[in-house]
Amino acid sequence: MVGINKRRVRIGMIGHRFMGKVHSHAYRDLPFFFDLPVEPVLSDLAGRNEEELKAAADAMGWASYETDWRRLVERDDIDVIDIVTPNNTHAEMAIAAAEAGKHVICEKPLALSVSEAERMLEAVRKAGTVHMICHNYRFAPAVQYVKRLIEEGRLGRIYHIRAQYLQDWIMDPSFPLVWRLKKEVSGSGALGDIGSHILDLARFLVGEMDEVTGMMKTFIQERPLGEMSGGLNARTDRERSGQVDVDDAVAVMARFQNGALGVFEATRFAGGNRNGNRFEINGEKGSVRWDLENMNHLQVYFTEDEAGLQGFRTINCTEDVHPYAGAYWPPGHIIGYEHTFINLLAEFMRGIAGETAPTPDFEDGLQNQRVLEAVEESARTGTWVKVSRPGSLTGQ
Amino acid sequence: MVGINKRRVRIGMIGHRFMGKVHSHAYRDLPFFFDLPVEPVLSDLAGRNEEELKAAADAMGWASYETDWRRLVERDDIDVIDIVTPNNTHAEMAIAAAEAGKHVICEKPLALSVSEAERMLEAVRKAGTVHMICHNYRFAPAVQYVKRLIEEGRLGRIYHIRAQYLQDWIMDPSFPLVWRLKKEVSGSGALGDIGSHILDLARFLVGEMDEVTGMMKTFIQERPLGEMSGGLNARTDRERSGQVDVDDAVAVMARFQNGALGVFEATRFAGGNRNGNRFEINGEKGSVRWDLENMNHLQVYFTEDEAGLQGFRTINCTEDVHPYAGAYWPPGHIIGYEHTFINLLAEFMRGIAGETAPTPDFEDGLQNQRVLEAVEESARTGTWVKVSRPGSLTGQ
Amino acid sequence: MVGINKRRVRIGMIGHRFMGKVHSHAYRDLPFFFDLPVEPVLSDLAGRNEEELKAAADAMGWASYETDWRRLVERDDIDVIDIVTPNNTHAEMAIAAAEAGKHVICEKPLALSVSEAERMLEAVRKAGTVHMICHNYRFAPAVQYVKRLIEEGRLGRIYHIRAQYLQDWIMDPSFPLVWRLKKEVSGSGALGDIGSHILDLARFLVGEMDEVTGMMKTFIQERPLGEMSGGLNARTDRERSGQVDVDDAVAVMARFQNGALGVFEATRFAGGNRNGNRFEINGEKGSVRWDLENMNHLQVYFTEDEAGLQGFRTINCTEDVHPYAGAYWPPGHIIGYEHTFINLLAEFMRGIAGETAPTPDFEDGLQNQRVLEAVEESARTGTWVKVSRPGSLTGQ
Amino acid sequence: MVGINKRRVRIGMIGHRFMGKVHSHAYRDLPFFFDLPVEPVLSDLAGRNEEELKAAADAMGWASYETDWRRLVERDDIDVIDIVTPNNTHAEMAIAAAEAGKHVICEKPLALSVSEAERMLEAVRKAGTVHMICHNYRFAPAVQYVKRLIEEGRLGRIYHIRAQYLQDWIMDPSFPLVWRLKKEVSGSGALGDIGSHILDLARFLVGEMDEVTGMMKTFIQERPLGEMSGGLNARTDRERSGQVDVDDAVAVMARFQNGALGVFEATRFAGGNRNGNRFEINGEKGSVRWDLENMNHLQVYFTEDEAGLQGFRTINCTEDVHPYAGAYWPPGHIIGYEHTFINLLAEFMRGIAGETAPTPDFEDGLQNQRVLEAVEESARTGTWVKVSRPGSLTGQ
Repeated sequence: MVGINKRRVRIGMIGHRFMGKVHSHAYRDLPFFFDLPVEPVLSDLAGRNEEELKAAADAMGWASYETDWRRLVERDDIDVIDIVTPNNTHAEMAIAAAEAGKHVICEKPLALSVSEAERMLEAVRKAGTVHMICHNYRFAPAVQYVKRLIEEGRLGRIYHIRAQYLQDWIMDPSFPLVWRLKKEVSGSGALGDIGSHILDLARFLVGEMDEVTGMMKTFIQERPLGEMSGGLNARTDRERSGQVDVDDAVAVMARFQNGALGVFEATRFAGGNRNGNRFEINGEKGSVRWDLENMNHLQVYFTEDEAGLQGFRTINCTEDVHPYAGAYWPPGHIIGYEHTFINLLAEFMRGIAGETAPTPDFEDGLQNQRVLEAVEESARTGTWVKVSRPGSLTGQ
Repeated sequence: MVGINKRRVRIGMIGHRFMGKVHSHAYRDLPFFFDLPVEPVLSDLAGRNEEELKAAADAMGWASYETDWRRLVERDDIDVIDIVTPNNTHAEMAIAAAEAGKHVICEKPLALSVSEAERMLEAVRKAGTVHMICHNYRFAPAVQYVKRLIEEGRLGRIYHIRAQYLQDWIMDPSFPLVWRLKKEVSGSGALGDIGSHILDLARFLVGEMDEVTGMMKTFIQERPLGEMSGGLNARTDRERSGQVDVDDAVAVMARFQNGALGVFEATRFAGGNRNGNRFEINGEKGSVRWDLENMNHLQVYFTEDEAGLQGFRTINCTEDVHPYAGAYWPPGHIIGYEHTFINLLAEFMRGIAGETAPTPDFEDGLQNQRVLEAVEESARTGTWVKVSRPGSLTGQ
Repeated sequence: MVGINKRRVRIGMIGHRFMGKVHSHAYRDLPFFFDLPVEPVLSDLAGRNEEELKAAADAMGWASYETDWRRLVERDDIDVIDIVTPNNTHAEMAIAAAEAGKHVICEKPLALSVSEAERMLEAVRKAGTVHMICHNYRFAPAVQYVKRLIEEGRLGRIYHIRAQYLQDWIMDPSFPLVWRLKKEVSGSGALGDIGSHILDLARFLVGEMDEVTGMMKTFIQERPLGEMSGGLNARTDRERSGQVDVDDAVAVMARFQNGALGVFEATRFAGGNRNGNRFEINGEKGSVRWDLENMNHLQVYFTEDEAGLQGFRTINCTEDVHPYAGAYWPPGHIIGYEHTFINLLAEFMRGIAGETAPTPDFEDGLQNQRVLEAVEESARTGTWVKVSRPGSLTGQ
Repeated sequence: MVGINKRRVRIGMIGHRFMGKVHSHAYRDLPFFFDLPVEPVLSDLAGRNEEELKAAADAMGWASYETDWRRLVERDDIDVIDIVTPNNTHAEMAIAAAEAGKHVICEKPLALSVSEAERMLEAVRKAGTVHMICHNYRFAPAVQYVKRLIEEGRLGRIYHIRAQYLQDWIMDPSFPLVWRLKKEVSGSGALGDIGSHILDLARFLVGEMDEVTGMMKTFIQERPLGEMSGGLNARTDRERSGQVDVDDAVAVMARFQNGALGVFEATRFAGGNRNGNRFEINGEKGSVRWDLENMNHLQVYFTEDEAGLQGFRTINCTEDVHPYAGAYWPPGHIIGYEHTFINLLAEFMRGIAGETAPTPDFEDGLQNQRVLEAVEESARTGTWVKVSRPGSLTGQ
């Protein structure tokens, strides 16, 4: 068997829809592609709707299931709590898991507020367990390779990052008021759901932001009630409607501590962009461009290339030299969305095995939350808002 | 002969470098491609350096030249004054030209300030002559076609415009302090030079802005002295240096009167982007994307395309149905940068012939100036700034 | 467990390197993504080098292993023989497997010759078991979608197919003489290895060929000895060298039975093309373009699109309406190379469950072999060569 | 005036439609962009339909016109005969022009046959005047830059060229039987009209071909009568129809003298490709890709680029270092189709001034004709046909 004789890391996962499927698959594929010191085991799956939960557990290969997530946290034979539920449940679950001595991995955004996020970070620090937040796009080989180029100084001083996360799945006004469109459940709209990803990529690649100013907008303010039904699909109640109280779109300008400028945009109203998570970074010595919809390719430009031969190179990041790519197929044989999670979970497992202190962790999640909150405040006040420095909790 | 027996429109142009070459060429090509009621004649060219001026007049086919631009304005046998000089001279020249009863065409940005721009508009209104500002990118066939699509409602309600004008010609810190980097001559840096173009395109395609907030930055604050020497090249004085007092980069967020959101960025520090004037517009029924470096192609997406077959269409805007394209070559035979000026000047000539009231005119120039000034104020104050409504002058 | 209570289909696989890894992974992922009537089980893996074999079996999750493939064929508790060994072994193994009553799936090209392929087809027909050949690129959602468009008449009469399979992994003259470069083992070079894929896609999408003419070339005729070491990498013996007796590159012109023209090129000497499997098909009513390196995207053009809005649409084939895409992630979340095999094996399992008669099968493999052999003959003789009609064996 | 005091080169042009417009424009623009030792003058235009001819002469700025081209050849005050008429007239006109001591420039293909082409070459050699054939695509800056890269050995030994010239302007079966579809007037169809261009580019960039084999096809064999009416448009006679006796599409495989392989395709039935003149060349050290519809951009790949950073660079060939680009606009300001002719005619003028011996000349035209004739013969016989070596005439 794959992973035979390896230490088993028993996973308990709370939630079983889109992200539950993604995580379950990644755990299953992980030992096939990576030779890790530990082996993840799909032990226990928690959810509220027993019928759907049982079907999901069967379909995805979980050994058991629980209709009360607290039971899962209480189990002695669970090492990891993986939280893939709506955002308003993250804090309670993560804190309970940490208090039970579990390693914790949580979907983004970490919480509904900075104060929740701080309590979560406190809890995992106190527990001394491994913690991660699922900003999976950091783990595309092309993105990791950009990180390496920047760290090696290949782009020089960074002048600009411009990033967009453009989607179009709720443009139809008859698309219902699912949880992602309710503030009490999701905290925010495009900002927390997809804006958080590009702001995290910016922190990862360019550094911390000093101050931000944001603009938020809800284009469609009333929608029929309804709920998610798998992936990004939804079921609609045609009789009743409700108010959308989160942003359909958000834009952000940022000044980074290192002097770089950032311009960000996240929207669910950019027709034709199914999942357009894109960025361009310009530095003194070079530039890079990336787009999730064509995630294996990276464009790289070097200022010092020979005159006449200067141009963006389109690189298929499937060579052994590209981070994580060697785990998969030969050059030119592309990987997809799911592999970003496999790579992320490989780091999580290495962390649990004591080999590394994997990031992004809850500290990153907290700092991301601080940026999100600063954006919201600036959108409300119309002014620039300082982003608190990372490193210490507010109360300390 | 081309244009034989047509009414001759005698041009006097002030300035003879990059833009002087572009305009001269366009006037020369105009009658070849367009059957217009009037014919432009390259009558008189003005400049200060007689040696360079004479060489330019010879090389570009001007009948005569003047070392004092005022002589040109005074001539009775000149119908049009075309101003392609640095920005700090536009107001004086345009006003003098208007007062002498000339038609006036002026490079962008119109002026150094809103008050200058207002005086210019007053002057041409009083003169009753035809006036235009050279926002030439409006005249790419693809851009005109976008205008038509939007006017016909093919994109529906507009949600977003995001536009960038990315260049990299002054990234080298040893590139000198040319006039475009001096506030007293140019008014601003990237903002007025290239930002003004994308803000004009936004006004043209999406409508007027209600308020803006901007961020400006000068990455390289000291440079050797020097001057432009043709195109975007420069001569450097290696002994002396000076302070750059304009922006190297600017970003703007805008709220439009019609509810759309705008995100703009103009920079001369985006390595690898020689002339990356790009925009994407997302509407309720469709989206468009355009990039000047590949200006013949337009990408168009329709929300209502058949399921499974939805995607951005890459359209080569060289068909007869695309504005201005029929004047040139058969489908698939592309045109270039210079043709945007030929198209613009065709409209100017039609205006002079009394057929149309061509735009963009000084009113557009003024309104653009108001946006630029609001961006500068917001960058200074860190707050959102309202953009004055077009239609009337401040003093009226 | 995934697939609990389902009928188990016990796989015995011969070979464990690049293709072995791909198939193993696909079997493992299959029940996660597809709700099939049967469940594949990784029962037994065969290979010659026991050390490598054992390591591979462990790493990929096979329950047992055999150093003699014949043992695997003899086992009663094996339902399927999956052949991923070099081409010169396919015929013997497949025939033995069929005679033992197994379902058989075999990597491409099916055999070294038409006569081998005919014997293989005879054997599986006689056995009455399910058989497939692994032309996996048929199973990219975009390719299946092209098939559907053509079948529905959306492209009308087909005029052209031009396809290239461009690679560059052996361009370095010091790359060794691995089995893929030896005629006795591989049958041919680029022709059988990658040319067979695009010729299969052409048969799948456009139909049968009437006649072909080919050109073959070996650019580097002597190489150091060596062997494959995983993926497309190799180990080199620097002391000894040998003659390359297969083609480095091949080009083919074809006339199809339906009147279409085909132009094909397969080469391992196209620098910069890691895995450039590309085709364009032009029909009376539309055209399509596809490229494996960006396999989720399909370009589609319709002749009858509105004037001015005609252009290739770039479609991200990740919608539910695109074949197989619904099994994976929401729109815009791309899949990769490995998923073509998962999709192919889903069809194989459905065939074993009696639901379908999956293709491409050995009949396709034989017909592909006939095309390959006609190409080789034409390259030798310099004339056009008729391709035998499919449907019956030579000896019948 | 532009060109004042320069030696005037008086042009007499025969023909005034699509190509007549292109040449006329190029002569007019030439002195504006290039500082040449001579200045072209649009002296006399010949055609048969006086009404259309007069209108064309007026619109394009010709000083006079003649309804009999022979009058033009007889004039003492004409230095150059420029032939832009249908192919069946080239030989007679060019020979008459040469015999009258004129410089001769002729549209492609040079003639209807190798024997005609040989007589044309003999005539200009005997006259000792300057001669060129208008393979204008050689003169795109990107193509010239490829030539330089190859000559400098930057691509190393050439392995492959694959080129397509794909159009779609006659796909509609109701498009009429214009002269380009009649063998007696045009000699061949797609082969001579557009195939000749890519075969010329192959000769220019890769070298001479040793042997070829071709495939030709006429998809629509009967069409209504009609004639060209400007550009690639046509007027149709709906009552009468006729047989198409030229190829709608042609494909060619070639072996070059230097060992490279060529694969070519020219068709007017590739829907969505308005003017898709594309090539890719693969050499030992690098590859290039070019596409006329995006002609300012060149893609270049170098085998020896650093691992991880290998990829095709997209180069905007508008820098001073790119051939001819410096004559136009600053980097990033693109040029178009018409500029290829301006560049070509600049070389013609330099030739007439005695500065250079410009190519492609009639020798190239003859050699191209030999390739075309070999393709036609091979398509007829189904075998490979040797291409006669250039350098001497058959009869010598």
